[in-house]
Order: sequence, then C-alpha cells, then structure tokens
Amino acid sequence: MERFVIIVAGGSGLRMGSEIPKQFLPLNGRPLLMLTMEAFQRFSAELRLVLVLPPAQTARWRELCREHRFGIPHHLVEGGETRGQSVRNGLDAITASDGLVAVHDGVRPLVSHETIARGFALAGEGKCAVPAVPVNDSLRMLIAGGSQPLDREMVRRIQTPQVFPLNTLRKAYSLPDFSGYTDDAQLVERAGYAITLFDGNPENIKITTPADLKIAAVLAQEPGI
Amino acid sequence: MERFVIIVAGGSGLRMGSEIPKQFLPLNGRPLLMLTMEAFQRFSAELRLVLVLPPAQTARWRELCREHRFGIPHHLVEGGETRGQSVRNGLDAITASDGLVAVHDGVRPLVSHETIARGFALAGEGKCAVPAVPVNDSLRMLIAGGSQPLDREMVRRIQTPQVFPLNTLRKAYSLPDFSGYTDDAQLVERAGYAITLFDGNPENIKITTPADLKIAAVLAQEPGI
Repeated sequence: MERFVIIVAGGSGLRMGSEIPKQFLPLNGRPLLMLTMEAFQRFSAELRLVLVLPPAQTARWRELCREHRFGIPHHLVEGGETRGQSVRNGLDAITASDGLVAVHDGVRPLVSHETIARGFALAGEGKCAVPAVPVNDSLRMLIAGGSQPLDREMVRRIQTPQVFPLNTLRKAYSLPDFSGYTDDAQLVERAGYAITLFDGNPENIKITTPADLKIAAVLAQEPGI
Repeated sequence: MERFVIIVAGGSGLRMGSEIPKQFLPLNGRPLLMLTMEAFQRFSAELRLVLVLPPAQTARWRELCREHRFGIPHHLVEGGETRGQSVRNGLDAITASDGLVAVHDGVRPLVSHETIARGFALAGEGKCAVPAVPVNDSLRMLIAGGSQPLDREMVRRIQTPQVFPLNTLRKAYSLPDFSGYTDDAQLVERAGYAITLFDGNPENIKITTPADLKIAAVLAQEPGI
C-alpha cells in the first residue's frame, strides 16, 4: 500500500517578525522545512512526499534546495488561500487509487519516528489517526459570567501528522466547505468518520514564534528525537 | 495594606532525574528559587515573602543562601505532606489581621512584573485573581468511547501567582479537606468565592523537567521578562 505525506507550509513569517517565511528559517543551520522532510525520510525512504508551498515561495524553495544540496525527492505543489485549500491541492496531486496519507505541518520538524509509525499503523487498520499529548497546566473554561475548572486529565493537545486512508481524506475534502477548516480531524469527523487518538511526542511543537525556534533547538537535543 | 507572597517549593527532584530538588537547580548560575524570589523583590521590596520548604531541605537552603550571598529577607516555614498543607503552613505564619496574599510556585521564576502587578491590583479590589494564558494547540476532550473537539478559544491555562484578600484565603484553608487541593483557585471557589481571571505572561512556565530548565533559559532571554 502506497504511503503519502502532504506537508503543508503556508506561513508568511509575519508572526516571526521576519522577512523569511517561518518554514525557511534555520534550525541548526538548515531550513525548518528540510528538517521536517528529513524526519519522514528517515522513517522510510519509500514515503511519497508532497510539499505544498505558497506560489510566491516556490522559486526560493528551489534555490534553498540547491544551496543545501537537499536531495529528498518530493512533489512540489502550489498552495491556496487557506490551509484547507492547500491540503486539497496536495491531495489532488496524488493520483493513486488507494493508499494512506499523512497531513503534517511543515513547521513541526521534531516529529518522532514512533509518532509517524503509530499514525501509519492505525491508518493501515482503516482508522483516522490523530496524535495527541497530555496538557501539563491546570485548565479553566470560560463560561457566561466567569470560568470553571476543566479536568486536564480529560483534555488532549492535538498535533500532526494526522494519518488517514487516502479515500477517506478525499471524501472529507470533497465537502463543500472544506476550505475553511484548519484541522483535518474536524473535517474528517464532519464527513462522518470517527477519530482515533494516539500518543504523539510532546517535543513535536509547532514553530510559530522566534521563542519557539529557540525552544525547538533545545528540544532537538533531547533523547528520543 | 500589607502584601504577602507565599512561595511553595515542595519538589523532590525525582522528575528531574536529579538528586538536587528542582527548586535548587541552577538557571543562569543561580538556584531557581532565588530567581523566583528576586522577581517578587524587583516588583516591590516591601512585599513580605514567606518561603515554604520541605523540612529536609531547610538546612541546604540556608547553606545556598550563604554561598550565593542571597540577601532577600524572607520567613522560612516548614512544609507539610501535601501542597495544600504547605500553603496552609505558610498562611499560618502570617499574623497580620488584614492584607493581600499571593501564592506562587517556587519553580516559576519567569513571572513578569506585569503579572504580579495585575494580580495584586485585582486582589486589592477584593477579587480572587488567577493568571491565565491562551492555549496554542488544537484541543480535544476525551468522552465515553472517543473524543470530541474542544474550542481552544474558550480554554485558558492557569498559572501562579494567584492573589487573594488574606482573609478570603484563610477561610478557604479552614475547609476540612483543604489538604488535598493542588490548585488554590479551586479551593477558594469551593469556599464560595468567585474567581477572576487575568492575563498572565506565557513565559511563566512551571519548571518540572530537565527540558523545561533549558527552555526557561531560552525564555529568560526574551523581551518582557
């Protein structure tokens, strides 16, 4: 069964206070996005990688690939106005009639081998597999006129890669309002499928601020990445 | 009106994989706990600091104070078996008939001036003031047989310092089951008072793992701390 990974990288760098799109910022000397793709390549060189980038960034990406002698084969696809449209464009580039597909944020380079393995294993059983990690802080929920405690033991933080049978994700992305969804799991649920949570790795943070980038450099040194 | 800060530091260091209690571990060369106390001292030298430590750690703390020439005046109190009992012991050491009291985790050295200021200002208006920050990840809640999306916009992560009118906190800690509570806000609510959330600073993390310690060193460099 063919296994695909759609890597979505649509950030403009505005929250980073940087001219450079965040997925191109260096971590340990290499663009984040390359580290993310290398994590999947290390898991299996047979994964088929689809990279979705804003049209304005494809030329720069190709330059970066030459500069860094980046040799991981991938299919480069132009993204849309929203994350939903970008995932859909990536999905449309996959012509296989069957298989498994992971959707992953380009700015999560610290995804572990085990997280990727668990996701594909569950999707191989027909599940819609979503990585989740515990919450470390006490939580409260805002309600009319105030707030109330929320049992953190019952709450999970959701990450990517979210892994699906290919045709399940296709059905979800054929819903008319797919474009507005930022979370694949919610769109798939809306299409009538159940979600299966599995243990992600806590270091697999989404890098969206300069502090995140520094924190990622620390976490990259931790055992297990 | 007198303002007190009860700093609770009960950790044994087990989660740190260290023989040294986590509150004594160095951040930028100084024990965490000293940095935490310095944050409050910088806010106002008139705050009355009450430090609650496990009985087995008080001798070592006094040694550390000598070694580091730590000169911030504080009242050292022996803690109990639980966090609840430790806060109660700290509260019992305060003899003032009236005032405001903050309860703060010893391993949160990155509390900002603004967070402390907002907490005391609200408590000065009679509120039970609890610092809260947004959640950055998508969330799901575990339910029977699966999980469901949870709107992260409605959820807040809770921090310390939690700041109260002194006699309000005393009433809460006179409840018979105070000892089992790990969150002052919940105990105060149980005593019949409403909680007021205010904006904490996101860098104000609780340091409980070796990775947290390294992340704190990064965050300590960020503007605003």
